[in-house]
Amino acid sequence: MDKGSWRHILLLSLTLNVGLLSRVIYYERVNLSSLGTERENQRFQKFCFEENTRERKMGGGGGKDQDAHVSKSSPPTWTTRTEPEDGEHTVINLDHGDPTMFERFWQKMGDKCEIVIPGWQSMSYFSDVRNLCWFLEPEFAKQITRLHKLVGNAITEDRHIVVGTGSTQLFQAALYALSPPDASEPMSVVSAVPYYSSYPSVTNYLKSGLYKWAGDASSFNSDEPFIELVTSPNNPDGFMRLPVVNRSGGMVVHDLAYYWPMYTAITSPADHDIMLFTVSKSTGHAGIRIGWALVKDKEVAKKMTEFIVLNTIGVSKDSQLRAAKILGAVSDSCHHLGNPDDDESLFEYGRHLMAERWKRLRSAVKQSRLFSLPDFPSEFCNYVGGITETQPAFAWLKCEGGIEDCESFLRGHKILTRSGKHSGASTKYVRVSMLDRHETFDLFIERLSSIR
Amino acid sequence: MDKGSWRHILLLSLTLNVGLLSRVIYYERVNLSSLGTERENQRFQKFCFEENTRERKMGGGGGKDQDAHVSKSSPPTWTTRTEPEDGEHTVINLDHGDPTMFERFWQKMGDKCEIVIPGWQSMSYFSDVRNLCWFLEPEFAKQITRLHKLVGNAITEDRHIVVGTGSTQLFQAALYALSPPDASEPMSVVSAVPYYSSYPSVTNYLKSGLYKWAGDASSFNSDEPFIELVTSPNNPDGFMRLPVVNRSGGMVVHDLAYYWPMYTAITSPADHDIMLFTVSKSTGHAGIRIGWALVKDKEVAKKMTEFIVLNTIGVSKDSQLRAAKILGAVSDSCHHLGNPDDDESLFEYGRHLMAERWKRLRSAVKQSRLFSLPDFPSEFCNYVGGITETQPAFAWLKCEGGIEDCESFLRGHKILTRSGKHSGASTKYVRVSMLDRHETFDLFIERLSSIR
Repeated sequence: MDKGSWRHILLLSLTLNVGLLSRVIYYERVNLSSLGTERENQRFQKFCFEENTRERKMGGGGGKDQDAHVSKSSPPTWTTRTEPEDGEHTVINLDHGDPTMFERFWQKMGDKCEIVIPGWQSMSYFSDVRNLCWFLEPEFAKQITRLHKLVGNAITEDRHIVVGTGSTQLFQAALYALSPPDASEPMSVVSAVPYYSSYPSVTNYLKSGLYKWAGDASSFNSDEPFIELVTSPNNPDGFMRLPVVNRSGGMVVHDLAYYWPMYTAITSPADHDIMLFTVSKSTGHAGIRIGWALVKDKEVAKKMTEFIVLNTIGVSKDSQLRAAKILGAVSDSCHHLGNPDDDESLFEYGRHLMAERWKRLRSAVKQSRLFSLPDFPSEFCNYVGGITETQPAFAWLKCEGGIEDCESFLRGHKILTRSGKHSGASTKYVRVSMLDRHETFDLFIERLSSIR
Repeated sequence: MDKGSWRHILLLSLTLNVGLLSRVIYYERVNLSSLGTERENQRFQKFCFEENTRERKMGGGGGKDQDAHVSKSSPPTWTTRTEPEDGEHTVINLDHGDPTMFERFWQKMGDKCEIVIPGWQSMSYFSDVRNLCWFLEPEFAKQITRLHKLVGNAITEDRHIVVGTGSTQLFQAALYALSPPDASEPMSVVSAVPYYSSYPSVTNYLKSGLYKWAGDASSFNSDEPFIELVTSPNNPDGFMRLPVVNRSGGMVVHDLAYYWPMYTAITSPADHDIMLFTVSKSTGHAGIRIGWALVKDKEVAKKMTEFIVLNTIGVSKDSQLRAAKILGAVSDSCHHLGNPDDDESLFEYGRHLMAERWKRLRSAVKQSRLFSLPDFPSEFCNYVGGITETQPAFAWLKCEGGIEDCESFLRGHKILTRSGKHSGASTKYVRVSMLDRHETFDLFIERLSSIR
């Protein structure tokens, strides 16, 4: 090369330097160090800390203890481990429906669902005083409507949205709204066996004079007015449900927490007077404590709102804003529909993971000959546009043969489940969460398969 | 220069290229563009949007409507306006204790109190299963203890911390925990007149068989066990309080929501069995819905936790993490103590703003001759290290002369307040919030001064 060529290349190189330098200065100026890097450091520090802590203190996957250690601000570090070291001594806790299965999906989504809340934001009690539910964040309401329309699982037209601190609070708000304030006797609250195990205690814990738990809807034969709770798909057994009390004078609360494509076929948009949903089971964010009700009657919506004001003076704005971001991301991810290998769609991800888990569970159950599981019909899912399987969030497992107390039997094998007796059913049944972390589920299948 | 020198300079330049390029790639990798810049854009967009919306739709300050418009995600844009355009027609709503006065302080604090929550964080129901209150975020607990120690307003040693969705939920949790589950009659709940106006309705709305509202503690003379609610400083009248029922068999819940240096002198660390605090009144973040209880007895703390599980299955983790960040910033700001012009300390900022507001209110009241206000003793504040004034979060305003219904009278002047009758007191009294935004308070003083 001659001197001119060297000069030419040097000029190009210097130009590139100036370009790169200006870019670096730009990044420095917008304070990257206090944003990205700090966060990255935090993540890696936490990663190491949590990993060490877990190794030292627990030595295993699964269960409540794991939840406690890793729940705060670590990334899902357990994804690095496939086999807990002392597997056979680990207590596998599948009693709660802690939806930690979804953590990996959200980790993959990265910054898309990150929310930034400045110190001066959402200080007031009020979100939108023009709305009947004045503590409902408008953006959250918008994303609820958008997601229901996309999924086709509920009618939102001419409905009032009431936000709650989880659907548990909304369930109580519905009881409060539907019970006459000055009746001489408390209103009977019923649900068909097997019902959600928390219904009796949540209905009765304050010994309310407005409503009281009256047990199995199938055997309810009083002439008095009543409230029937219909959970569909049902918790604990996963079947789609309709009201069973066959007479007038009843009001129905539809708990549709699990009416999402990863659990069941979306056969038509639900169109009931009071429909309850929760972020916990639709996106896996249980710690956010956010649910919503779609309510047809204005006066009922008003009274539900009144309950939430008396109970907690509204609902966390931070959680509502975060829920809005998350539901928005789920809707965005729905565009990926139809590609079975597409992990970008929450519902596709959830459907395929649940299908795999149910397949493994059925195989282990078949192998053991000690247990049985319900069989579900396949149905046409409008959302998927094809026939899909039912793969509930809980397995309603039955101990066969001479085992009378399935919960005790499994506890003997260090598997914690919820006895069917809490759902008004036989102790031969247990409810098993299908939504726990991968390692916990792996260990569960391994343990179950080894029971002879 | 010879060819060798050119080569040498080129080599240096290329090395610089590589260095800068790697730095740029690093920045790109940690996704700066989706963090800092997007956030900055959002802020400015929101700023413009909100400002426009307010100009078009409302044209005025004050009241509920203002809260609705600006509460979501705008910075406090109203700081750009000093005089609402149609001041005399504006309804001034000082009925609620919405603590929006603090927005300016937090705006000044900027990014220090910003919180970033990634999509995969806090998904589980659990925060720390080793803790009795398993849904309490450890970092929040740490910051609560730190702040109380710094301020000296409550003993935290040998106390259990129970977190609640605001102190309203914790108040109900305390009633649940203190009432025997199988008593034949509900436990009496009393508080001395004038009491917090929500106590009767929050105690009675579910017609609980566990507890019932029994009115003024001063005239309570039943022999049955009872729960006495002691709010100190008191809402609505601002005085420090002690229990008034002078016999055994009673249990006391201390609501210390206002026992902070901006409202009153911190004379000693409170040391009671059950003490309730809330983020709403200590930092001004009402929309966060977070309160905490310091509880001496383990079994009581357990039952309070049980109530919160039955009521809402725990408390928003997002809000707890944000509250931890905010309380941490308040503690950090305490180092600036003693400099009266120091706006960096929340308590100094609050003390001086409240002092100025009370001075202006007293001056307007004196001028009008239609109203009167309570007089408070000055006391030595351990936190400030000197004598300080009492300057409550609410003004307990009395209409003098022939005005029997002070709330109606003020409503006629488009000032909304809460009648004394809701606190068990005379209708000659009203409770007026002293914590609203600057423009609202200015308008209130102006309006009050003009009443003859």
